[in-house]
Amino acid sequence: MNPQISKPTLLLDEERVRNNLQAMADKARAHGLRLKPHLKTHQSLTVARWARECGTDAITVSSVAMARYFAAEGWDDITIAFPCYPAMARAIRQLPADTLVSVLISEAESAAGVLSELPGETQVYLEIDTGSGRTGFRPGNSGPISRTIRLIRSSGHRFRGFYSHPGHSYQCSNPQEICTVHAHAVAAMRHLRAEYAPESGPIEVCLGDTPCCSVAEDFEGVTEISPGNYVFYDLMQHAIGSCGLQDIGVALAGPVAARYPERNEIAVHAGAVHLSKEQLAQNSGAHYGRVVALDHDLQWDPSAALGIVRSLSQEHGIVQCSEASFGRLAAADAVAILPVHSCLTAQCMGAYRAVPSGAPADHFRSSHHPTS
Amino acid sequence: MNPQISKPTLLLDEERVRNNLQAMADKARAHGLRLKPHLKTHQSLTVARWARECGTDAITVSSVAMARYFAAEGWDDITIAFPCYPAMARAIRQLPADTLVSVLISEAESAAGVLSELPGETQVYLEIDTGSGRTGFRPGNSGPISRTIRLIRSSGHRFRGFYSHPGHSYQCSNPQEICTVHAHAVAAMRHLRAEYAPESGPIEVCLGDTPCCSVAEDFEGVTEISPGNYVFYDLMQHAIGSCGLQDIGVALAGPVAARYPERNEIAVHAGAVHLSKEQLAQNSGAHYGRVVALDHDLQWDPSAALGIVRSLSQEHGIVQCSEASFGRLAAADAVAILPVHSCLTAQCMGAYRAVPSGAPADHFRSSHHPTS
Repeated sequence: MNPQISKPTLLLDEERVRNNLQAMADKARAHGLRLKPHLKTHQSLTVARWARECGTDAITVSSVAMARYFAAEGWDDITIAFPCYPAMARAIRQLPADTLVSVLISEAESAAGVLSELPGETQVYLEIDTGSGRTGFRPGNSGPISRTIRLIRSSGHRFRGFYSHPGHSYQCSNPQEICTVHAHAVAAMRHLRAEYAPESGPIEVCLGDTPCCSVAEDFEGVTEISPGNYVFYDLMQHAIGSCGLQDIGVALAGPVAARYPERNEIAVHAGAVHLSKEQLAQNSGAHYGRVVALDHDLQWDPSAALGIVRSLSQEHGIVQCSEASFGRLAAADAVAILPVHSCLTAQCMGAYRAVPSGAPADHFRSSHHPTS
Repeated sequence: MNPQISKPTLLLDEERVRNNLQAMADKARAHGLRLKPHLKTHQSLTVARWARECGTDAITVSSVAMARYFAAEGWDDITIAFPCYPAMARAIRQLPADTLVSVLISEAESAAGVLSELPGETQVYLEIDTGSGRTGFRPGNSGPISRTIRLIRSSGHRFRGFYSHPGHSYQCSNPQEICTVHAHAVAAMRHLRAEYAPESGPIEVCLGDTPCCSVAEDFEGVTEISPGNYVFYDLMQHAIGSCGLQDIGVALAGPVAARYPERNEIAVHAGAVHLSKEQLAQNSGAHYGRVVALDHDLQWDPSAALGIVRSLSQEHGIVQCSEASFGRLAAADAVAILPVHSCLTAQCMGAYRAVPSGAPADHFRSSHHPTS
C-alpha cells in the first residue's frame, strides 16, 4: 500500500506547516508584536526559510550549536533561550561577529560569572518566572532584578528587556485556563516594564509559549513573542485546546511489522527512538500517539483515529485498535502516528520527508546536535 | 570545578563497562550459553570490541541500519531482533553476502510475505511471547507455530530456533519476581524445544532480557542469551534489583546553569533531548535521573545522591536537592546524572567520552540512525 515507507519516516505536511507559520505571523502583526519563533521545534533550514517568507527576521534557539547552524544560513538576530552559564558564554564568542546574539540571565548569583565571559555588548534579557517554577527571577524580587540590570550595564552589555516562558500553560485543560495563565504572565511582565523602563529606556518584553500565543488575544505591554511548537503542533497542544487535529503538521510513518487479531493489536516499527517517550494521559491510561490511516500519497486524515500507541520499546510501538479498525490497520503496510510532542519526535528523527511533494527536507541533526 | 564539561556530555566509565561485559560473559560460559549481546544499548564499535575481548563472536541488533554498521566492522553473525516485515527483508538483501543474518518471524499471517523477500537461506527464529504481550507467537499456539516452521523450510530458509524477550521482567520489583518470570519463560521455551526438536534437528533457544540474565541461575534448555542493557545498566535495572548503583556504567554530565536557593533547586543543561523522557516512579512521584557529584577527573560516586531530576524540558533539567546537598551542587560547574534508561540516553547523545582516559569513544549516530 505504501511501498515508499520502508522504515520509520517523519512526514511533514507542507501546507499545514505553512498555514501554521502564516497564522502566527498574521496574529503577531495584528497585535503589533515581533515574532521571533523558537526553532528548537523544527531545527530545519527549510522550515526557517518558509518562516522568513512570512516576514520573520529574528529567531530563538535553545543552544549555541543551534545558533551556529542558523547563523551560517544568514540569520543574524538570534536569542538563545536557555539560562546562560559561563561555558555557554565562552562558546558564544565563537559565533560570527555580525550576529546579534541575545542571551538570558535567569538568577542573580550566577550573573557576574556569565557576564564576564560574554563577548562585548551582548544583548541580555532577564528571564522572569511568571509561574512555571522552572527558571527565572520571581517578578516581585526587585532587589536582585535591579542589581542584575545594573550589573549588565556596568559589564559593558546591553539590557534588552524581560523574557518569560509561562510553561505552566501546558498543565491547563482548556483555552480558558490558558488565557488565565497568560493574563497573569502579561500583567507581571507589564508591571516590570513599567517599573524598569524609566531607568532603562525602551525595553522589550518577550513572551514565549505556544498555548498562550495560540489562544490569547490580550498582549498589551508585550513587544515580542517566541513560540516554537505552533509550527507543527501535536496531540498535547490539541489536548489542552491550542490547536485542532487538522493543524498538526507532522506524523511519523511506521511500517506495520506484525498483526495480532486475537488482541486487536499491531506492532509497528515506530519506537521510543523515533517518537520519544513523551506520553499523554487520558481516561484509559497514558498513550504515546494517535494512529491514523496513511494514503497512497503519504497524506493522513487526522480525524479518523484507528488506534493508539499503548506501549513503546526502543524500536517497537504496540498499537491498540478497536475490532472495527483492526482490519483496516492490519491490511496496511504502514500507518501514520500523530506525535504527543512534536519537538521531541523531530529531534529523535533528525530529518523530514515533505508531503505531498516527497522531497526530503534538510537532515539537520548531525550539523548541530548537542554532542557535535 | 569541571571546566571540561562545557556542554551535556555522556560519560562512559570504562572499568565499570568492562566489568559488566566480563561478568555476563563469565556467567554465560558457566552455564554453557552462547552470549549474543544486544548492541542497541551502546551502538558503539569501541564497546563491541571490548565485548569481543571477552569472547563474544555473535551479536544482536534492532535494525538493518545497525546491522550494516557492525557488519562493516567485521561482525559476521548478526541477529536482527525485531519482527521482520517485507521492506526490512528487502533491506537485508543489501547486507554483505558473507554475513550470517538471523531474523525474527513474530506471527503466522505475515510470514509468507516476509519469507519471500528475504535473501536465500536466511536463518529464521520464531519469536515467542512468553508473557510480555508485545510480539511473538503464544507458546501454546502449536498450529501456527508448526505451519510457520514448515513454511520457513519450504521457502528455502533455515529454521534456527526460538527467541523470546520476556520484557515483563521490567515490571518486577525484586529479584525473586524476576526469577519467577524467568522460570516461566524458560519452561515454555524448553517445552517448545522438546516439541519441535525431533522434527527439526538441533535448534537454538535464545532468551533476551537483562533482568533475567543478570539475576536468574537456571538456564536449562536455553542455548543462547542476548541481553543488551547489562553493559551499562541504569536506575530502572537498579530499582528492580538487576544491578547495584556501582554497576551503572554511564552518566550524563550536565553544566549547572542556574541556582535557586529559595527552593533548593538547580537548573542543569541536561534535558529531554539528552536523557530521554523515560521516568522512574518512586514514592514521591516520578523522576528522570539521580544526581551525583562529579570529580575533577570526571568520575562519579553513585552512592551519594545529591538530588533527583524532577522535571525535564527539551534542554532543561530541574534538580531537586535537600537543603544539605544544595550547597554542594550549587558550588559545582557540572553534575553527573545517572540515567533512568541508559539505552535511550545513549541513543539521544550519540557519542561517549570515556573516563578516566578522556578519550572520545566513537560517535555512532550519524552512521546508522534510523533516518540514515
